[in-house]
Amino acid sequence: MTIMRIGRAELRVLNLEESVKYYTNVIGLDEVGRSEGKVYLKAWDEYDHHSFILQEADSPGLDHFAFKVEHEDDLAMYEKKIEQFGCTLKRVSKGTRLAEGEAIRFELPTGHQVELYHDILRVGTRTGTFNPHPWPDGLRGIAPHRLDHLALTGDDVGTVTRFFTEVMDMFISEKITTIDGEEMVGSFMYARNGKAHDIAFIKGPDKKLHHAAFYVDNWYDVLKAADILTRNNIAIDVTPTRHGITRGETTYFFDPSGNRNEAFTSGYITYADFPTITWTEDKIGQGIFYHRRELSESFAKALT
Amino acid sequence: MTIMRIGRAELRVLNLEESVKYYTNVIGLDEVGRSEGKVYLKAWDEYDHHSFILQEADSPGLDHFAFKVEHEDDLAMYEKKIEQFGCTLKRVSKGTRLAEGEAIRFELPTGHQVELYHDILRVGTRTGTFNPHPWPDGLRGIAPHRLDHLALTGDDVGTVTRFFTEVMDMFISEKITTIDGEEMVGSFMYARNGKAHDIAFIKGPDKKLHHAAFYVDNWYDVLKAADILTRNNIAIDVTPTRHGITRGETTYFFDPSGNRNEAFTSGYITYADFPTITWTEDKIGQGIFYHRRELSESFAKALT
Amino acid sequence: MTIMRIGRAELRVLNLEESVKYYTNVIGLDEVGRSEGKVYLKAWDEYDHHSFILQEADSPGLDHFAFKVEHEDDLAMYEKKIEQFGCTLKRVSKGTRLAEGEAIRFELPTGHQVELYHDILRVGTRTGTFNPHPWPDGLRGIAPHRLDHLALTGDDVGTVTRFFTEVMDMFISEKITTIDGEEMVGSFMYARNGKAHDIAFIKGPDKKLHHAAFYVDNWYDVLKAADILTRNNIAIDVTPTRHGITRGETTYFFDPSGNRNEAFTSGYITYADFPTITWTEDKIGQGIFYHRRELSESFAKALT
Amino acid sequence: MTIMRIGRAELRVLNLEESVKYYTNVIGLDEVGRSEGKVYLKAWDEYDHHSFILQEADSPGLDHFAFKVEHEDDLAMYEKKIEQFGCTLKRVSKGTRLAEGEAIRFELPTGHQVELYHDILRVGTRTGTFNPHPWPDGLRGIAPHRLDHLALTGDDVGTVTRFFTEVMDMFISEKITTIDGEEMVGSFMYARNGKAHDIAFIKGPDKKLHHAAFYVDNWYDVLKAADILTRNNIAIDVTPTRHGITRGETTYFFDPSGNRNEAFTSGYITYADFPTITWTEDKIGQGIFYHRRELSESFAKALT
Repeated sequence: MTIMRIGRAELRVLNLEESVKYYTNVIGLDEVGRSEGKVYLKAWDEYDHHSFILQEADSPGLDHFAFKVEHEDDLAMYEKKIEQFGCTLKRVSKGTRLAEGEAIRFELPTGHQVELYHDILRVGTRTGTFNPHPWPDGLRGIAPHRLDHLALTGDDVGTVTRFFTEVMDMFISEKITTIDGEEMVGSFMYARNGKAHDIAFIKGPDKKLHHAAFYVDNWYDVLKAADILTRNNIAIDVTPTRHGITRGETTYFFDPSGNRNEAFTSGYITYADFPTITWTEDKIGQGIFYHRRELSESFAKALT
Repeated sequence: MTIMRIGRAELRVLNLEESVKYYTNVIGLDEVGRSEGKVYLKAWDEYDHHSFILQEADSPGLDHFAFKVEHEDDLAMYEKKIEQFGCTLKRVSKGTRLAEGEAIRFELPTGHQVELYHDILRVGTRTGTFNPHPWPDGLRGIAPHRLDHLALTGDDVGTVTRFFTEVMDMFISEKITTIDGEEMVGSFMYARNGKAHDIAFIKGPDKKLHHAAFYVDNWYDVLKAADILTRNNIAIDVTPTRHGITRGETTYFFDPSGNRNEAFTSGYITYADFPTITWTEDKIGQGIFYHRRELSESFAKALT
Repeated sequence: MTIMRIGRAELRVLNLEESVKYYTNVIGLDEVGRSEGKVYLKAWDEYDHHSFILQEADSPGLDHFAFKVEHEDDLAMYEKKIEQFGCTLKRVSKGTRLAEGEAIRFELPTGHQVELYHDILRVGTRTGTFNPHPWPDGLRGIAPHRLDHLALTGDDVGTVTRFFTEVMDMFISEKITTIDGEEMVGSFMYARNGKAHDIAFIKGPDKKLHHAAFYVDNWYDVLKAADILTRNNIAIDVTPTRHGITRGETTYFFDPSGNRNEAFTSGYITYADFPTITWTEDKIGQGIFYHRRELSESFAKALT
Repeated sequence: MTIMRIGRAELRVLNLEESVKYYTNVIGLDEVGRSEGKVYLKAWDEYDHHSFILQEADSPGLDHFAFKVEHEDDLAMYEKKIEQFGCTLKRVSKGTRLAEGEAIRFELPTGHQVELYHDILRVGTRTGTFNPHPWPDGLRGIAPHRLDHLALTGDDVGTVTRFFTEVMDMFISEKITTIDGEEMVGSFMYARNGKAHDIAFIKGPDKKLHHAAFYVDNWYDVLKAADILTRNNIAIDVTPTRHGITRGETTYFFDPSGNRNEAFTSGYITYADFPTITWTEDKIGQGIFYHRRELSESFAKALT
């Protein structure tokens, strides 16, 4: 009865083919299927059929994201808890998307659409599970291991955080509060998977996406990622640096539709007893960008 | 109701002060207390009171290791399951060791002593949990983040693996089998914490320790670790390389009593649905040492 | 008859003791001597007595810098060539500064003071030259290998560049020109030592220092440098990134007096036949900061 | 009047096509031409037409290697000095090999064939010299920057070392002597180019090649090199480690004909006044393999 990880994000993009080119050649995801105008993608180190879906739309942003649960009957259990919390919820039937089984879909207090699912076709990786090599031939671009986390904005960070901890059994690795400690203006949450975060919320307009992050191997691969971005003339929002929050190493940039992406690595390991770290708003600059020590306007304001 | 991590190992050493010097100056653990002839240590990035205990003895080896469980009442739950499996078990009362509460202790089918505990004094790290820096001043030596895992030997790898998966709710990331697939001769197991392994078993004599591993940050820190070992004239068993199994980057060496240590980093992330990787015995050389592709005699035979 | 390297820089600082603290604890240079109000410093991997001198003054900036020549009688040879070029020159007698022999001092067309010297006390490194370890115990702070290069500004980049190539037998690794190619607005020059540059000039006011750079080992050490700067609350001008020019990896920051420092690593190797790379002014943003692709105002304007 | 670098090595291989496949796909050199049964190769970061030539032969080994000199008339100058030293010498006429001008060829006291040349077609790199990117698209395999150095064996290390320092104006970065210091049994020599070595000699049979080394970018690229070698089932002689001598980071392996290759990085910078480091024979294990601290039999004995 456990959420395993953020398993999928579906993004709206303005030009589908241009976006597919970017996510396959620059990010280096593999296209694994197309159906009803959507393109399904996965990172080389993920074994489920897909983790990233693109749909063409008039405006960029997040269609929905989804957590994979450990057991099929976790869906019913969470269904009850989610409805008790007061969220509107519906079942998504098998076959709604490629290679997926039944799911439940609901709206967060911040207006974001979330799904839970267990059933998805398992396609494995190119390295396989029998006497495997550590990484496959033929990697392209940034070549991240996986979709790592999303950061979203919402008006009421406190309530959505309570939803994730109380209903979804997730944990808070770090939080940002006003200086007086009265209001939570940011929270970073993880499932029982050792990650620094699966999902983060920052105070801002509801329903918005701040960024979708992919996990790369190490600090040299963050450099390589930024090099590849410049070579491909991709707009970089934040050049390689360290986060205070999560300690991770990072660079931020924009997909062709303006959705922010991150190449992220490192950060600490979390367990269920990880002592939540608190940042006060006056130190948020250092918390987000440990070296620069102040937010940039674009980082604070560009949302999709 | 979940095991969070391997939380502690207690090792027997031949000369206590020499060993403390090694584990604090070369490995870079902090001494946090002494009691009844035992020395308690922790890594800089661990927030519990200790993770490593040294006791002086006539022969080196592992006194016991322990898993930390998420809730105090997990102890009773596991107590029942462990006894049902047929292991002899006893309660260890609070105060038996420094800063620890009650625990349960039992013997594995391989003869190793294991404890489960929840209650331990939480001392935090030097970076703290309020607007923290990513790492503290004054690190010494190899300066690992944490105790990462143990590898043990035992005659019946299949049964002890079944114990960990059925009774302890742990998962198998990788296993080694005979070429015909009939017998399991190695298994690598993790709790719900994203790690490649908390505990591993390799076919060999019962009750023996193969190595205790500490987690370092990256491949450059593996190089730094090996440099520090040579400077301090510590015997290195395996120079920096990559594992096939876990993909991790590593170097192995010996503490002054002959207990094997490892500086380990990287490796993949695991979830509950991680597809177990299988190695066959004929490929074990490449599985253990991806570059050398064969076991060394010392690595196979030196046990404590 | 060859210039070996930039061997020394003497900087003016506003508060001597505060600056010594910064250069020894944060940068990690060793104080090697004091005389007549000046403090002499060296990096751990340099074998000459000093490479960096601090003097207290009312305004920050560069007092002078100096090249070490291969033979004592190179001084007379260069003396003639420098005077032929039209620079005012004088002999600096042995004992003017600690541990140094005779030197020649002259003024560049840009107004900067330069010295050439051969004779300096050779003190060696802590690792020694007999069965040495690769790095010494007890490194502090950023711990660079060496003073690497200076970047200066001047009104007439073309003439000062001609001075260095014609008179000083140095080579141009890269140059920046106006878009029409008519005027040289930047040049990067090296002696026969394989470095990407010993000295660089950027069009700007005469006599000014843009930055003094120290060489660190690798991209992880650039990260460590930036971490150390934030921990010590040092103003960072440019967070870790790659240069287009020299390909090097870098972070820039300010000493307590506002003199800009750089932690620099990598870059290509140069030989006498290295084909000079040309950047046009419209691409200077990408040339200087390969990821950000535009100059920041502070980087362009803050000079001492 | 200066030797700039080791510019070329020509190796004998048993099967030409198999070797070309290895040097282009695994090492990642570019094939730049074929003529009279020879295949010409260059590394991506070299601007001369070629640096590596393969010829098919009945036994592996070194046909010859060559230094590039700064000026065409350096040939005549060195010709005289070489003959004065007593070496047999001949002119090699333009057109003897692809894209090369006139050269001089002579035999070392160790029996190795050496050439000096200045004139070679300059083809540049794919990144070009106009607003270039730091590295090109489409790199393959280990993708070294350049041919870095050769290590050869010979009976009289002292004499051949004297030849390189007295006749060729090269410098000794490190030497190995018998414990009593009487005999030189190893020497590492560099031109005025900042490298740790262009050429090394180890006491052993005359005319033999110990290894040909390629320069990779950093310690992570040494790991990547070793990973690629295992994936391609190439025999690795020495897994990733650090050298005591030169401090460089390294892995050794064999081409399909048994010629030893090295992927080498880092090491210190050298200038003409670099203080020669001395190792005594009893410490040669640590000098060669800083972590393992002893020579392996294969490393000492496998020569071609």
